[in-house]
Amino acid sequence: MAAVSPLAPAGFPRLARIEGVRLAAFACGIRYTGRNDLLLVELAPGSAVAGVFTRSLTAGAPVLWCRECLVGGRARGIVVNSGNSNTFTGRVGWSVVEATAATAARLLGCEPEEVFISSTGVIGEPPPAGKIVGALPQMMPLLSADGWEPAARAILTTDTFPKGATATTAIDGVEVGISGFAKGSGMIAPDMATMLAYLFTDAAVPANVLQALLAAAADRSFNSITVDGDTSTSDTVLLCATHRAAHRPVANPGDRRLGGFRQALDRVMVDLAQQIVRDGEGAQKFVTIEVTGAATVRAARRIGLTIGNSPLVKTALSAGDPNWGRIVMAVGRAGEKVDPERLSISIGGTQITIGGGPVPGYDEAPVAEHMKGREITIAVDIGVGRGKATVWTCDLTHGYIDINASYRS
Amino acid sequence: MAAVSPLAPAGFPRLARIEGVRLAAFACGIRYTGRNDLLLVELAPGSAVAGVFTRSLTAGAPVLWCRECLVGGRARGIVVNSGNSNTFTGRVGWSVVEATAATAARLLGCEPEEVFISSTGVIGEPPPAGKIVGALPQMMPLLSADGWEPAARAILTTDTFPKGATATTAIDGVEVGISGFAKGSGMIAPDMATMLAYLFTDAAVPANVLQALLAAAADRSFNSITVDGDTSTSDTVLLCATHRAAHRPVANPGDRRLGGFRQALDRVMVDLAQQIVRDGEGAQKFVTIEVTGAATVRAARRIGLTIGNSPLVKTALSAGDPNWGRIVMAVGRAGEKVDPERLSISIGGTQITIGGGPVPGYDEAPVAEHMKGREITIAVDIGVGRGKATVWTCDLTHGYIDINASYRS
Repeated sequence: MAAVSPLAPAGFPRLARIEGVRLAAFACGIRYTGRNDLLLVELAPGSAVAGVFTRSLTAGAPVLWCRECLVGGRARGIVVNSGNSNTFTGRVGWSVVEATAATAARLLGCEPEEVFISSTGVIGEPPPAGKIVGALPQMMPLLSADGWEPAARAILTTDTFPKGATATTAIDGVEVGISGFAKGSGMIAPDMATMLAYLFTDAAVPANVLQALLAAAADRSFNSITVDGDTSTSDTVLLCATHRAAHRPVANPGDRRLGGFRQALDRVMVDLAQQIVRDGEGAQKFVTIEVTGAATVRAARRIGLTIGNSPLVKTALSAGDPNWGRIVMAVGRAGEKVDPERLSISIGGTQITIGGGPVPGYDEAPVAEHMKGREITIAVDIGVGRGKATVWTCDLTHGYIDINASYRS
Repeated sequence: MAAVSPLAPAGFPRLARIEGVRLAAFACGIRYTGRNDLLLVELAPGSAVAGVFTRSLTAGAPVLWCRECLVGGRARGIVVNSGNSNTFTGRVGWSVVEATAATAARLLGCEPEEVFISSTGVIGEPPPAGKIVGALPQMMPLLSADGWEPAARAILTTDTFPKGATATTAIDGVEVGISGFAKGSGMIAPDMATMLAYLFTDAAVPANVLQALLAAAADRSFNSITVDGDTSTSDTVLLCATHRAAHRPVANPGDRRLGGFRQALDRVMVDLAQQIVRDGEGAQKFVTIEVTGAATVRAARRIGLTIGNSPLVKTALSAGDPNWGRIVMAVGRAGEKVDPERLSISIGGTQITIGGGPVPGYDEAPVAEHMKGREITIAVDIGVGRGKATVWTCDLTHGYIDINASYRS
């Protein structure tokens, strides 16, 4: 594993136990040596599940499997391997998924369709089914309610640190927990990365409500980050609810008792999403882009992501160069409505533009000073409406080229 | 100027004179020292003009001016400066455009609306109107029918070589010429780049027909290249026809006598577009991406550009790594219809995938050998239709970061 990102948090947080969730990690030798590369999660009977997946049209077999299983809304197990993405592997890849689900189902006492599967790693090489299937029985005795950090580590690829987040909230006055972990370093990385996240709660929330909560929170978190603009064939976020908390069940996403839960879920998912950016390949700076005054929330997010994806903005960030003209350029190419006369750009709290040009007497010094730091804030008001969104990204550095232009073998 | 790109042609070609076109270059000291930074083109009375421009919603004042003037379809002059893009400069910027057009019109004996203006360089700094306006009278005695190479050099910014192309063809058996030049190194570059191209012909083709010919050729040339996926606020392509050739005038774009002219225009524009890619910031390899079997031509081009814009594909190209999984990834995220079971990828003529997986017994050696070269060809068949397009790009290297992450001053 490469040196830990300079933007990494101090350590892996202590995640709250979630009743009905046990985890086990194992080294089955798919590609890496000397580390765990397989994760098994056991969920108590009655657990509901929601999921969001890559929009790629060349999605891998595990993603196609999960989409089919999601219709049932129930989950009893999750199996994740790192080192091989099982994407573009034809019939062989599909048979590996089926064999994995069948074996896990037998061990967990459930249907194969209640076992969700993710794979992350090289594209186009059939994964070693025997190693995965053979490891699962050995993992059963290792299942533990405290297995969070080994779980978070087993799914890493080019990541330089494991990513976890946790929150407690209440529904009906009854405490419920949310714990989760994620991986990701580029949207996709040296043959073998992907954004994966697994979230668990003991709340009694049915699958259709979970799905609505997850989709909304994903837009504000994982869909609001970018490292390099490339989209993996394997991106997967699952949210599982074990229904072990003692509150009266929630029946619809508009239920007002969900207010605190929604906020806590947002907090956990934004935390994990930001950790992925902080582990962005080659990242030296963590950048927050706040877009306001857009026509819609969707327009605001698209403008923010266009700024965050621009190689010219990202190289300027890397240089600490307050080159705001590149932000104007990115806003202009986002394809969303903008009023150049009202476009206002601030960096680190210093307003730079007004009335279609630079602020009279604009002094670059405080902006340049802010941009020397590890954490940079860009605020852009588009001047046409009330849509707003926050997007997170990192800079583009020689490190990104080093990581991605090295030969695979 | 940095070292000349390793992908540059041997030298500036000898461009055919176009009757009715004279050019002059001048050093007026906008930003650079020791080189020309202003271009004046004189067009004979009766010249028609067509143009295509950036789709940026924060386009600069010169682009807005050209769009207004284009309605008239007539051109008598073109003024281009490098070093300052006159973009996001508010009312001051607009007044610079008006003063430039008024002065040039007086000198050329035409209306200001017959003078087209482009600017390329830093965004957000008002250009020095006095230097530009003051230089124009001094340029009149320098106008020359052979001024192509100085003209092509005067408009450069971060480019490492001047870009010209020429062709002769016939309409009605009468020889007509097309000569043109262009600049561009990133879609936009260190504060100060842009894609500009100016094309001239003596053909007797009216503005509406020229416009149709130009728009179609632009899609197959300048709209089919990418360096970094960023779109300038100043991109401009103009095609001027002096009507000095003796053939009977052409009245509509479907006129069969235009067959040879259309092909020659394509040739010149594709040549210039490829030269821009060959001067891509940091480029070490020239990459041709041939997409076939897409639902439509537009879908094919979008898939090609998504492959060509992917930082992960571009870094793999830089490393000479036959990492075809990244091409699968890029095809998947292009948002166009694709049949993964029929998706066929070849590099350097070696077929790599078939039936949704690698070709049985696939041998990477010849692909790796091909990728060591300066010129790389990727062919992708999408398997759903008959749409095809060719896209050109370059690799993403440390040189790109060096150029763009250096502080402006």
